[in-house]
Amino acid sequence: MFTLYGDIISGNCYKAYLVANLLDLPIRWVNVDIMAGEAQTDEFKLKNPNAKIPLLKLEDGNYISESNAIINYLADGTDLLPEDRFLKAKVQEWQFFEQYSHEPFIAVARFINKYQGLPETRKAEYASKQSGGHKALSIMNLQLQKSDYLIGNSMTTADISLYSYTHVAHEGGFDLSSYQAINTWIDRIQSHPKYVGMQLKPQHQ
Amino acid sequence: MFTLYGDIISGNCYKAYLVANLLDLPIRWVNVDIMAGEAQTDEFKLKNPNAKIPLLKLEDGNYISESNAIINYLADGTDLLPEDRFLKAKVQEWQFFEQYSHEPFIAVARFINKYQGLPETRKAEYASKQSGGHKALSIMNLQLQKSDYLIGNSMTTADISLYSYTHVAHEGGFDLSSYQAINTWIDRIQSHPKYVGMQLKPQHQ
Repeated sequence: MFTLYGDIISGNCYKAYLVANLLDLPIRWVNVDIMAGEAQTDEFKLKNPNAKIPLLKLEDGNYISESNAIINYLADGTDLLPEDRFLKAKVQEWQFFEQYSHEPFIAVARFINKYQGLPETRKAEYASKQSGGHKALSIMNLQLQKSDYLIGNSMTTADISLYSYTHVAHEGGFDLSSYQAINTWIDRIQSHPKYVGMQLKPQHQ
Repeated sequence: MFTLYGDIISGNCYKAYLVANLLDLPIRWVNVDIMAGEAQTDEFKLKNPNAKIPLLKLEDGNYISESNAIINYLADGTDLLPEDRFLKAKVQEWQFFEQYSHEPFIAVARFINKYQGLPETRKAEYASKQSGGHKALSIMNLQLQKSDYLIGNSMTTADISLYSYTHVAHEGGFDLSSYQAINTWIDRIQSHPKYVGMQLKPQHQ
């Protein structure tokens, strides 16, 4: 069985939790409280020197870090990850977009607002995230006007990667109401029979 | 033939240029001057709404953006990209690490210093990049003490992704002299018979 080290307040961890649910993969969830610095301990750094979650432990004792690498590993050989050379590249394209042009704006703004209570010292930084976040949302919306999912008409791990922080973007101060195609896409993902929400704490601890 | 829209001052573009050379792939290079805003034009945004380079155009007219997605596409089916499920995940792990925990520090510091001439308005930001950059270098060095390349003992696209900005990290103010394993790895990559340096301007324009 896979072991997933994570904190459910992190959308990056939720990606792996959601993919495991969509694919009926049994996982053992080990909670790592990032607000209490539990990913920064020497013990945890032996598992992941970058001191970040999520972290996947395989049955053979090997580890994989980085949320998008983890979910592509979990989804390998399933319908969530196309084998076609071009489509595979498009999945990664959206995932690198997510980590560079989406997460640093939307997830960081959400963290400052929701988990740090928008402290005075980070208000300027919080405000500075809005423009980049809306640029990312506009690019997603443009694509989702053309196709049901980010890559064609079936769900891939790219959708999970982008869905994770997008569907809670309002918690970072991003009003999604004008992004109609994004809202339809969110509904589409949430209607998957094996969908599980972010607020449901994993049972396997 | 592939067409690569890029600017050789960008390490992200150099990744694709280097991989194409290593694999003897003919590419047509179209220069996009980022300092002159040529990636921000409406015409370019029709090709890539995120207004970034590198951008790969395939023979069928489709586009792929994001440097690491591009090089994995180019290297698909070659020795630079393992087929094994775990090794594939490790390649992506290092590449997502590069885009989130390495490039935003080292490449951005280099850009501010080398291409913007370290203006007064960005000095604080430049200084703030040092700690994150050294953390990334330490993590790489730790791995490279254990294996010749980032994943085992043969070169993969993960090495190209990390090499690109690491070998010019001094241009961002990062002294590499204490990272012995990184220096040995840089020499190893540069001794590849098909290696081509960053300063050589592509001939295909």
